[in-house]
Amino acid sequence: MNINPLKGMKDYLPDEMKLRDYVQGKILETYRRYGFLRIATPILEDAENLDKSEGGDNLNLIFKVLKRGDKLEEALKAGEEKALSDMGLRYDLTLPLSRYYAANRAKLPTPFKVIQTDRVFRAERPQKGRMREFVQCDIDILGDGSSNAEIELIYVTAQALLNIGFTNFTVNINDRRMLRGMLNSMGFTADTLESVCVTFDKMDKIGAEGVKKELTEKGFPKESIAALTAFLKNGDFSLEKVTGYLKDKALSEDVTAIINSVRKLTAGRFDISYTPALVRGQGYYTGVVFEITCAAFKGAVAGGGRYDGLIGKFLGENIPAVGFSIGFERICSILSESGFAVPAAPQMALLYREEADFAEVLQKAGRLSEEYAVTTLKQSKKLGKQLGNLEAEGYEAVAFFDNEEIKALGQKTEK
Amino acid sequence: MNINPLKGMKDYLPDEMKLRDYVQGKILETYRRYGFLRIATPILEDAENLDKSEGGDNLNLIFKVLKRGDKLEEALKAGEEKALSDMGLRYDLTLPLSRYYAANRAKLPTPFKVIQTDRVFRAERPQKGRMREFVQCDIDILGDGSSNAEIELIYVTAQALLNIGFTNFTVNINDRRMLRGMLNSMGFTADTLESVCVTFDKMDKIGAEGVKKELTEKGFPKESIAALTAFLKNGDFSLEKVTGYLKDKALSEDVTAIINSVRKLTAGRFDISYTPALVRGQGYYTGVVFEITCAAFKGAVAGGGRYDGLIGKFLGENIPAVGFSIGFERICSILSESGFAVPAAPQMALLYREEADFAEVLQKAGRLSEEYAVTTLKQSKKLGKQLGNLEAEGYEAVAFFDNEEIKALGQKTEK
Repeated sequence: MNINPLKGMKDYLPDEMKLRDYVQGKILETYRRYGFLRIATPILEDAENLDKSEGGDNLNLIFKVLKRGDKLEEALKAGEEKALSDMGLRYDLTLPLSRYYAANRAKLPTPFKVIQTDRVFRAERPQKGRMREFVQCDIDILGDGSSNAEIELIYVTAQALLNIGFTNFTVNINDRRMLRGMLNSMGFTADTLESVCVTFDKMDKIGAEGVKKELTEKGFPKESIAALTAFLKNGDFSLEKVTGYLKDKALSEDVTAIINSVRKLTAGRFDISYTPALVRGQGYYTGVVFEITCAAFKGAVAGGGRYDGLIGKFLGENIPAVGFSIGFERICSILSESGFAVPAAPQMALLYREEADFAEVLQKAGRLSEEYAVTTLKQSKKLGKQLGNLEAEGYEAVAFFDNEEIKALGQKTEK
Repeated sequence: MNINPLKGMKDYLPDEMKLRDYVQGKILETYRRYGFLRIATPILEDAENLDKSEGGDNLNLIFKVLKRGDKLEEALKAGEEKALSDMGLRYDLTLPLSRYYAANRAKLPTPFKVIQTDRVFRAERPQKGRMREFVQCDIDILGDGSSNAEIELIYVTAQALLNIGFTNFTVNINDRRMLRGMLNSMGFTADTLESVCVTFDKMDKIGAEGVKKELTEKGFPKESIAALTAFLKNGDFSLEKVTGYLKDKALSEDVTAIINSVRKLTAGRFDISYTPALVRGQGYYTGVVFEITCAAFKGAVAGGGRYDGLIGKFLGENIPAVGFSIGFERICSILSESGFAVPAAPQMALLYREEADFAEVLQKAGRLSEEYAVTTLKQSKKLGKQLGNLEAEGYEAVAFFDNEEIKALGQKTEK
């Protein structure tokens, strides 16, 4: 039999789980303090729902579940790949939330401030930092169309990161409507927006000349490329500058209001910055999008945005919605690599001799467990060696069933 | 699009999740106090591992995941059902644990006292109390062949149930080797044991005469049926009586030691009882088996046993192993139906007017959240009606951004 976990999936060792449980606990504690309510949805979703969601590239990465019994027999006869499967593993928590809200709306408050922290699955080519099974931690506000929803999500997500121990991170924010407005005003047509953005987004790496070259290769109109290049070379990517390009100046109002509010809330511990090229991958975002970057990690540690259209696909009535997802796996990797020590009750070994009355051993363990995490273990004949091993395993104290002694073991050594 | 969760799977509402998080928190807290370490394994397992596990009926209930890309093309050409899938959703946590231990043994302590609480999947015909996706909470001790492992699992699992608020439950215990020994001594052959037990187990419902009738219909030897019927009619199902039937009296030593130890630990809050017909379904159990029943619920709320052979299938070397699984879903159902009130921080609504500075609203929410779970909400024009609604939704207090007043709302009404 195969003893390894499947490709792109992971067995978590006890120390890794301690860190994961700690991070998840801190996130949940923060979100609950601000009145967010946790829900859960099944890991499996209807295949048709997944197919019709606007998940971008993620739709190609869905693990599909085989039909069963007679239905499978029929599908096999038909011989069509699509007919073989009736459900799939979810690729994110936003699609299931939209379905959930449509199904349970009558039992939920308005606005609905909701927490989800759970596993998602993507059949990606495995590589460092990309897993096929991983955890997302999302908060969403459904039913509030005002910018207050974005402000609250950004503030509360930042509080969660601060409570875990992160500082000096930056919230990057943009509004897809502004980006579209600016590019339109430069003469790019609506249907080419995505392609222009892909190139625009590389500005950091390839510079204004590189962007110009790539857009020219893609065959965009000269005047449009010239206008965008002038903007890039000017180097002023401020909100005011971009607003200057917009025919409808109102398009920058939301981002302006959000930045001004969040600036009052950073207390010097994080920053918010307007980022005109930010798009985010998902097709379902309709307006403001944001992500959090931090110097310790290339790429975003959290991302989200407004998706006012998605719930309407289930409900037949649009519900304003905005979400923010913490990249749980990235947070855990960063903390783990930095040697973060997870706070926990001190670990104690309670040693007993083979012939001891084990019921009494457990009673003693129960008393000691008020203060320690107590592991009952048989005392070995070579006690010195055993104590050395226990220390190496991370035990901080040893007690003995035979007597009242409690021996402190050396400080946990850094790994 | 389909707004309902898939058949046999469930959307959890905020109040249901509060209860589930509370129960899981209590269980984890108890297990950690006794030095058990939490791990996690992927939800997907290798199809071959699942196939070759001794999961009994569960093997017919595995959700299978379709191959992807070229491998799927090939499989479709071959047209064989088995070739279509390379992995499946796990049906329990014991098989993944056995694989995990084989893969990670060098990094794990001996004995390994381990916690798993996670989702499992079974493609059952949906019915009340049977879900296709549900949570199991397991503790296992790997690497301790002595009865102390069973005693500790029973004690710690009972402590978890007591901490949640359960009392007056009974641990039923048996040893498959004893049962086999007794039936052998009555002349039933080893290969018919399972069939005899299925009937034996119905004693409560159909009585000794019913058992006799069914075994006769099944065509078992007259003398064997007569011996079993005499035992049943005698009505003494004590450990001593059954031991009397055994050729090898040592077969009852483990159960005797476990019952004697656990009796010292019940403190009158639960009981342990020898149950000669107890078998438990899984094929992988090798010796002692146990389950917990309680008057409030038909069927078991926890079950487990010793499975000394399963890890050897992965490792090529047998490792003594024993596990106890709490029926998380049943515990939650029982508590929910009893109207159990989950302890939690009081819920407060912080009302603000449309024109308020929302950054300052969030700052006030931050201060109040030291004591309450604070939901910021827009104040509506009809304040009295809004307060009534908030009370109905379960809010216990209301604060206002405009002033320092904190208004208590009526006691949470029983649902």
